[in-house]
Amino acid sequence: MKTDDASHKRMSERRKAGFEKKRAEATLEKGLLIVHTGTGKGKSSAAFGMGLRVVGHGLRLGVVQFIKGALHTAERDLLGSLPNCDFLTMGEGYTWNTQDRAADIATAQKAWAEAQRMIESGDYRMVILDELNIVLKYEYLDLNEVLEVIARRPPMVHVVITGRHAPEALIEAADLVTEMRLVKHPYREQGVKAQQGVEF
Amino acid sequence: MKTDDASHKRMSERRKAGFEKKRAEATLEKGLLIVHTGTGKGKSSAAFGMGLRVVGHGLRLGVVQFIKGALHTAERDLLGSLPNCDFLTMGEGYTWNTQDRAADIATAQKAWAEAQRMIESGDYRMVILDELNIVLKYEYLDLNEVLEVIARRPPMVHVVITGRHAPEALIEAADLVTEMRLVKHPYREQGVKAQQGVEF
Repeated sequence: MKTDDASHKRMSERRKAGFEKKRAEATLEKGLLIVHTGTGKGKSSAAFGMGLRVVGHGLRLGVVQFIKGALHTAERDLLGSLPNCDFLTMGEGYTWNTQDRAADIATAQKAWAEAQRMIESGDYRMVILDELNIVLKYEYLDLNEVLEVIARRPPMVHVVITGRHAPEALIEAADLVTEMRLVKHPYREQGVKAQQGVEF
Repeated sequence: MKTDDASHKRMSERRKAGFEKKRAEATLEKGLLIVHTGTGKGKSSAAFGMGLRVVGHGLRLGVVQFIKGALHTAERDLLGSLPNCDFLTMGEGYTWNTQDRAADIATAQKAWAEAQRMIESGDYRMVILDELNIVLKYEYLDLNEVLEVIARRPPMVHVVITGRHAPEALIEAADLVTEMRLVKHPYREQGVKAQQGVEF
């Protein structure tokens, strides 16, 4: 179906008016609780893109990686080298490698202590808790305690939480939730192996 | 529900075995056609995260932005400053601003000429066509021509296409498709305005 110039112009004008009305109505500024979940790719990279913007605006960014390896080396090195960014990698690898639940819990609690300190300090415009969802799913941390710390944070702190299997109560509490949904994957369907850039 | 240590360990071992079996079966290396679509956030940032990894491996990255502004300034500046990355911003703004269909088509065709040159050269391990989906949706380019150029590309070139409303035929042709699904948005539901880092 071909759209002609006149109808295209009318549609564009309507769209622009709607966009500007919505923007005029939105006046509130507040720290947001943002969740990236789902089984698709890009949850950490998208959080990282926001973090980069925060730093680009001269604001302070905190990152706690609850599981090592969710962000890839090139991205981690870059974030870690930015001014105004405190980047902590606390996770010692996924549990199906370490196979030691008690050690995993201790690691998660150490990471959470750092996250809590960052969130409560008010020194950061954004705190990214990378792969926290996985840690919550395995019950390495108390979900209610995590939600309480987030709920009583200083008002302008954005908290971004990534990972598959975000708990329902976290989604309830969140302001902005994006699900990265896997539609098609070559690894599974075609026997394509993990490749540089795409997977690591 | 609490998982005890023994059952946790059994589950971990099963999972590890499954993962390794799948990895052993996946032996094919090839350039992938990757699509990030959906109305949620993070489509461009997630593509950019992959691009960063490609450059991190010492491989060459090409980026053509079909619509200016989809990647934010901090991210664009960073990508543009990387060695081994050719970054072209071709779009002159969303159509609901320019309101000129003929000009939009000319811009899209100019951008596509650059994209085609990058893809066909074989000089790039990855070519990101940022917001190409939008341009295809508005029929500024011929979808079949785009698909043909992608189909006959050199074998190890990954092509990553972002934007809402990926056409069905593109999803059919793709190897890896992720839908960023908007679950909850504060802008719409709470009257929260666009904020630094989160939205721009």
